[in-house]
Amino acid sequence: MWRDLLPLGRSASSGGYFRQPWTAPEREARAWFVEQAEARGLAVERDGLGNLVAWWGTGRTDAVLTGSHLDSVLDGGAYDGPLGVVSALAAVDVLRGRGFEPRRPVAVGAFVEEEGSRFGLACLGSRLLTGATSWETARVLRDREGLALEDALADEGLDGSRGTWLDGVATFVELHVEQGRDLVDRDEAVGVASAIWPHGRYRFDFAGEANHAGTTRMEDRRDPMLSYAMTALAANKQARVSGQRATFGRVDVRPNGTNAVPSHVTAWLDARAESSTALEQLLADVERQAQERAGRDGTSLTVTAESVSPEVAFDPALAARIAEPHRWPVIPTMAGHDAGVLSAAGVPTAMLFVRNPTGVSHSPDEHAETADCLAGVTALADTLALLSGGEQ
Amino acid sequence: MWRDLLPLGRSASSGGYFRQPWTAPEREARAWFVEQAEARGLAVERDGLGNLVAWWGTGRTDAVLTGSHLDSVLDGGAYDGPLGVVSALAAVDVLRGRGFEPRRPVAVGAFVEEEGSRFGLACLGSRLLTGATSWETARVLRDREGLALEDALADEGLDGSRGTWLDGVATFVELHVEQGRDLVDRDEAVGVASAIWPHGRYRFDFAGEANHAGTTRMEDRRDPMLSYAMTALAANKQARVSGQRATFGRVDVRPNGTNAVPSHVTAWLDARAESSTALEQLLADVERQAQERAGRDGTSLTVTAESVSPEVAFDPALAARIAEPHRWPVIPTMAGHDAGVLSAAGVPTAMLFVRNPTGVSHSPDEHAETADCLAGVTALADTLALLSGGEQ
Repeated sequence: MWRDLLPLGRSASSGGYFRQPWTAPEREARAWFVEQAEARGLAVERDGLGNLVAWWGTGRTDAVLTGSHLDSVLDGGAYDGPLGVVSALAAVDVLRGRGFEPRRPVAVGAFVEEEGSRFGLACLGSRLLTGATSWETARVLRDREGLALEDALADEGLDGSRGTWLDGVATFVELHVEQGRDLVDRDEAVGVASAIWPHGRYRFDFAGEANHAGTTRMEDRRDPMLSYAMTALAANKQARVSGQRATFGRVDVRPNGTNAVPSHVTAWLDARAESSTALEQLLADVERQAQERAGRDGTSLTVTAESVSPEVAFDPALAARIAEPHRWPVIPTMAGHDAGVLSAAGVPTAMLFVRNPTGVSHSPDEHAETADCLAGVTALADTLALLSGGEQ
Repeated sequence: MWRDLLPLGRSASSGGYFRQPWTAPEREARAWFVEQAEARGLAVERDGLGNLVAWWGTGRTDAVLTGSHLDSVLDGGAYDGPLGVVSALAAVDVLRGRGFEPRRPVAVGAFVEEEGSRFGLACLGSRLLTGATSWETARVLRDREGLALEDALADEGLDGSRGTWLDGVATFVELHVEQGRDLVDRDEAVGVASAIWPHGRYRFDFAGEANHAGTTRMEDRRDPMLSYAMTALAANKQARVSGQRATFGRVDVRPNGTNAVPSHVTAWLDARAESSTALEQLLADVERQAQERAGRDGTSLTVTAESVSPEVAFDPALAARIAEPHRWPVIPTMAGHDAGVLSAAGVPTAMLFVRNPTGVSHSPDEHAETADCLAGVTALADTLALLSGGEQ
């Protein structure tokens, strides 16, 4: 399965992946999923968004759903998302090899636009599927080229309607490569998630005045680049001091010419904190410093919350039931996942993590050892067997 | 003439101009120039770069060349470049209206890619025309999409060969909207240039390590955005303190995703100073601070000089000859011009400036009053009459 997936959307220069949703590489990845599921005799359902699910067993109620996503961040790694999908299909193979027959149906799913790399809203597919985000809100979201989600979907022959299969799902288990080094520190190949930190994405729009870079005296400028630069440094310092996370990883400059003072700088703050209160405080501290600097620079600043997710505490009884027989550690994560969206929507949800030797993620350097990936498949197969209640 | 030019490459949202060389709007502007010249019975010559010249009078030696450029920065103003071309054609009309017959030929020219907005090298057309830049160097320059100059020209049916008409030019006079407020402070509609400040464009490549914006501890990051942000602030402060100019107006971030620590930030420093020594000192100060910060951030920095122009002192006798009869002020400029390239190549050169009420330039808000523009046309006509030595 990795051999099929590895070339899709891979950049020859960086070695990273560009699998933005509803583009050719991600479309191929979804076609690959359908092919793999059908080759296993699983019944595939698609919705009008591009979400996919494949059923093992008859009946569509009280099911155990597993899987993850196939899209990537810009220049991302090979494992984030696909490891969960590949492991889910491999776990079905393992269980069948054991002669296992599930009593409750097992479903393998792939959610679209988990990373929010194209339309800015993470977990878009699962948010629409659960109703956490309405179609009215989502359809007018625009990508970097200004194309509305509704039109991007129409170009793919998709009508925006959401699947109804979550109605029949009793439990969701998502396997994911770890995005930190907790499992390395604990010397474990597999762990179970306790919770996801609160997470916000905020757009900072700094507006100044375009001008000539040579002739305009420094003191006559209203340069939004300076306001932005101070804000990026302030966000880093604030997060470092408080033990939280704050990142400016995306910046758009207008007109972005070497010899022009910019008129606008738009930058996105990704912030995560141990509690919603701490997240609000972090944003408030960064915004206050940004506004003060904008005042000194003669620029203006508007901050827009593009998405804010509260803390997700996964079902503790479920996590314990999965972890205890194997003594897997139960650890928190700072990364958002479709599992968080389903959990918030009331679906009892668990996550399995596979060790990441460097902790590097959202990067071409993201990696997991084959032995750990295989341990993950076995762990997922055991978990599915436990939850789908069949005989083993 | 303004009515024809105003819609070409104008952004409906900003009101600014996007006339990048060898794109549709700039191609239309060049076609307009040919049409206008031919309508006046001027003989048009083109070269294999897109440079244009139109001749008034017979003979191709000892000529007085005037004109400017038709391309713009990204989201630029209406006047920068076109005012010099329009005024040149209008000055021909004025002189003919006066019944003037030049003894020496008068030529009206339009140079391509003066702003360097597409291939990064300002005054590319005049540099190639004078031989200041060789075709071997230029043909491999690439635009933001990675297209080589040679291929961009081939797409336009241009072979990259340069015109030879400068061989017959004895004097060049470029009229330009002022890009500062010297003439406002002096309460004058028209001025004459003394010199152009030295100017450098330097590419700062900061390399770090892409990583997950949520899971990577602040202290484990190698974030090039931070190194860049400190550098942008340091450049501003350094220029402000020393009375020079330093601008970071263009930034490219990779992968430029909200939830990823960037792997690379590339930013361009535009620096100008009153002397070459001061320019070198300014760059050295900025680079030292940038390297120090990169060291602290665990990132690396490479600085590449993309273009460095020494000071251009225009022919002082020529400036005095033009200015004195009218008592026009003689003032320096911090902006580069084709006039600087021709002057450096040994062509006796002068510049006329037209008052800019706000000093704003390289911006949709750039402006000049109609009365001042007409004063500029009259001044240019008088100057051409003086230099072409005809009877008036």
